[in-house]
Amino acid sequence: MEPVIGEKNHNLQKSAVQIEKAAQNGAQIIVLPELANTGYVFNTRAEAFSLAEKIPTGESTLFWLELAHRLDVTIVAGIAECDDEKLFNAAVILGPGGYIGRFRKIHLWDEENLFFEPGDLGFPVFQTRHGRIGIMICYDGWFPESYRMLALQGADLVCMPTNWVPIPGQDPKREPMANVLAMASAHSNSLFVAAADRVGIEREQPFIGHSLIVSHTGWPVAGPASSTEQDIIYAQVNLSDARRKRNWGAFNQVLRDRRTDLYDTVLGSQIKTGWY
Amino acid sequence: MEPVIGEKNHNLQKSAVQIEKAAQNGAQIIVLPELANTGYVFNTRAEAFSLAEKIPTGESTLFWLELAHRLDVTIVAGIAECDDEKLFNAAVILGPGGYIGRFRKIHLWDEENLFFEPGDLGFPVFQTRHGRIGIMICYDGWFPESYRMLALQGADLVCMPTNWVPIPGQDPKREPMANVLAMASAHSNSLFVAAADRVGIEREQPFIGHSLIVSHTGWPVAGPASSTEQDIIYAQVNLSDARRKRNWGAFNQVLRDRRTDLYDTVLGSQIKTGWY
Repeated sequence: MEPVIGEKNHNLQKSAVQIEKAAQNGAQIIVLPELANTGYVFNTRAEAFSLAEKIPTGESTLFWLELAHRLDVTIVAGIAECDDEKLFNAAVILGPGGYIGRFRKIHLWDEENLFFEPGDLGFPVFQTRHGRIGIMICYDGWFPESYRMLALQGADLVCMPTNWVPIPGQDPKREPMANVLAMASAHSNSLFVAAADRVGIEREQPFIGHSLIVSHTGWPVAGPASSTEQDIIYAQVNLSDARRKRNWGAFNQVLRDRRTDLYDTVLGSQIKTGWY
Repeated sequence: MEPVIGEKNHNLQKSAVQIEKAAQNGAQIIVLPELANTGYVFNTRAEAFSLAEKIPTGESTLFWLELAHRLDVTIVAGIAECDDEKLFNAAVILGPGGYIGRFRKIHLWDEENLFFEPGDLGFPVFQTRHGRIGIMICYDGWFPESYRMLALQGADLVCMPTNWVPIPGQDPKREPMANVLAMASAHSNSLFVAAADRVGIEREQPFIGHSLIVSHTGWPVAGPASSTEQDIIYAQVNLSDARRKRNWGAFNQVLRDRRTDLYDTVLGSQIKTGWY
């Protein structure tokens, strides 16, 4: 979708139209972009703070909770969260039965560092009727550790609200690197990824769309979505395949094959701090 | 190239033709496939052991050392190594000035587990006249930790001797997942990758070729090579770019942005052992 900066009510209503349409078409898990209720390009921390809400008692969470209940769907949506004086680039996961949990973006991108606190809740995995769902937001996906943390806790699906922007070095003739990263990580962790990006230009910042649903094999099963227009992409998958296909034949299993003895021991503290 | 199982002298001579041609065309760092001197599909451990050599005193290492010296090039080549009674799927790195070092494949694939010991030397990074070079072999590249271990020690270039085989779930209309993994890892670690695969069918096992050279941006700068024919691909790059481009503008640097506080602390021991 294309949120408008600061127009929270407008954005919520716009999200409701998309959510209702998706649900009518059979969607059971619906992912919205990063900061779907507020827009992304804040000018000041004060602006971001004025738009942020408590979770789960704020108006946006309550609005989406009503939809999740009424439409019998699970919704993952990006939201600006305030917790006392702290501000987070967060996401909520909401089911038909109510509030399930939240995620706070861990790796902050660019000027987000001016406004938001870095996430302090780790990488939770949420039990849902559909399976185990983890969440990450945008730049979190640049860190293979994010996927590992979720996979090692058994996540079947990563829902990724995102606001992907054009990046230096992108080959314009090829799919965005954001898509390549999602594919590689889905493959090497054997989990599904549903990444919902926004579109449009906000305060001169363009976004690239290209929302994607990736199977546990690493290959897309839906998308990429439009780079400029609002769009919904759908995939019907069996999340249990994430668990089944972690076995590569008789000898190999992609998570158990990790050599944690060497990751942790040989380099000692270098793996934690390093130099570069 | 296309090694022939058990025909070590033939394979070495074949590699010399390719190395001489590459050097004549200006190559300074030359990468050969995994197990380039012996072939890959051993029937028994005894067969593999009979073909393995000590490093650096075995005939294959000495053969390639002479080429490296005479042609003034750096060579990275896959080799079966014996160390007393132990057997490793290894690689050597050899410069004009002599033997630089070795790597032992850490993540063993399929029936390699029947014949080889898992690598016990960690992820060394070698100083060369061209910059800092790390090595991994084939299935090592499925583990983002391999790239992280090398990047955190400052590697500019990963040389990857490989024997990529067809994998389940590969979308035949798309580039091999092995290429996608190399691209994603080059990008998220800001380092160059030079992956040299073999071609041909050996004891009914096909190999997929598609050797690739990837820049620090994650985009290929040469290849993919042929999937069936011997081929040499070339790229001229500035390895220093690996270090320069780890900075994403004013706020972000892809390695320093890691949240090791959360990778290590929040999940405690789960990140090391996990359940899946």
